[in-house]
Amino acid sequence: MLIYRDRVRSEWVDNNGHLRDAFYLLLFSLATDALMDDIGLDHPATQPALAPGADANTRRGHSLFTLQCQLHFQHEVKDGAQVEVRTRILAIDAKRLHLYCSLHLAGQEQEMAACEQMQLHVDMTGPKACAFLPEVLAKVQALAAQDATWPRSPLIGKVIGLPRR
Amino acid sequence: MLIYRDRVRSEWVDNNGHLRDAFYLLLFSLATDALMDDIGLDHPATQPALAPGADANTRRGHSLFTLQCQLHFQHEVKDGAQVEVRTRILAIDAKRLHLYCSLHLAGQEQEMAACEQMQLHVDMTGPKACAFLPEVLAKVQALAAQDATWPRSPLIGKVIGLPRR
Repeated sequence: MLIYRDRVRSEWVDNNGHLRDAFYLLLFSLATDALMDDIGLDHPATQPALAPGADANTRRGHSLFTLQCQLHFQHEVKDGAQVEVRTRILAIDAKRLHLYCSLHLAGQEQEMAACEQMQLHVDMTGPKACAFLPEVLAKVQALAAQDATWPRSPLIGKVIGLPRR
Repeated sequence: MLIYRDRVRSEWVDNNGHLRDAFYLLLFSLATDALMDDIGLDHPATQPALAPGADANTRRGHSLFTLQCQLHFQHEVKDGAQVEVRTRILAIDAKRLHLYCSLHLAGQEQEMAACEQMQLHVDMTGPKACAFLPEVLAKVQALAAQDATWPRSPLIGKVIGLPRR
C-alpha cells in the first residue's frame, strides 16, 4: 500500500465548503502521480501549481494513462481537511495496472471515497502503449505483494444502477 | 439530451497540453450543474471562478449529490479545445437519476470520454435524501422521454478489469 498525503484546498470546494466530485478524483490522480514517482515513471503533474518541484530533466520517458475509473462518494470532505489516499495494486499484466484507492481523513480508517482505476503503461515518445520495463515491473510486483492479504473492498466491480425494489 | 458547452482551460491541462483525468470529470460535473439549472435544482458551482453569475438568492433548497460515477477515457483532449457534454437520462426513481454523459469536441460525433453517473436528490436543509418535487420530476421525465430511442452505449455497466487472454 502506498500512502499519499494532501490537504483539501479552498479552490476545490463549493459554496457549502464541501469538496466537489471532480476534486475527489484530483486527489486520487495526484496519488497515482505519487505511485508513478515510486515505481520510476514520469507523471503529468508537472503543472507548476500542482507540483512546484517537478523537473523536466528527471524525465524517464514512460508514464501511466488512465483508461477507466470508478468513483464511490461515501462522505463529504470539508475545506482544509488533511487527507490521505491509500493505493493498492489489485492486478497487473504486461502493460496495465488495476488499482484500488481509498480516501481517508488523515490517520482514520473510514473511507470517505473510493476509486478503482485501470492504468495503461505508455511510452511517451509515441505516445503508445508498451510493456513495463523489468525494473519498473519488479517494483510494481513488490508493491502488489504487500497487499496480497488485503480483504478486498465490496465496492470493487460494483456496477452503477438503481437499487432493486 | 441536454448539451453543455465549455472550453478546456489552461489550468486543467498537464505539461503535455492534455486534459488531466480529474478535469474530464470537472467538465461532466459542470454539465450536471447545467442539468440542475434546467430541471429547477440548486447546484454547487457557486464557486466564483467557475460560475461568476451564481446568485445565492435564486436558491431553491434542493440539489443532486453524486453517489457513484464511472469514467472512460477514450481520446486526449487539448488545451483550448471547444467541447460539449451531452447528457442523457437512463433511468429515474423517486429520488435518483442514472445518467450517461459523453464528451465531444464541439459538434463532433466521436466520444472523447464518457461518464456514467448515479445522482441522489437531496434536501439541502439536512442535507438529506428526499423524493423529487412533482414539478422537477415532470421536467426529468420529459428529458428522459427525449432519449427513449437512443441506442445505449456499450460502455454502460462495463466493469473495470484486465482483458482476458
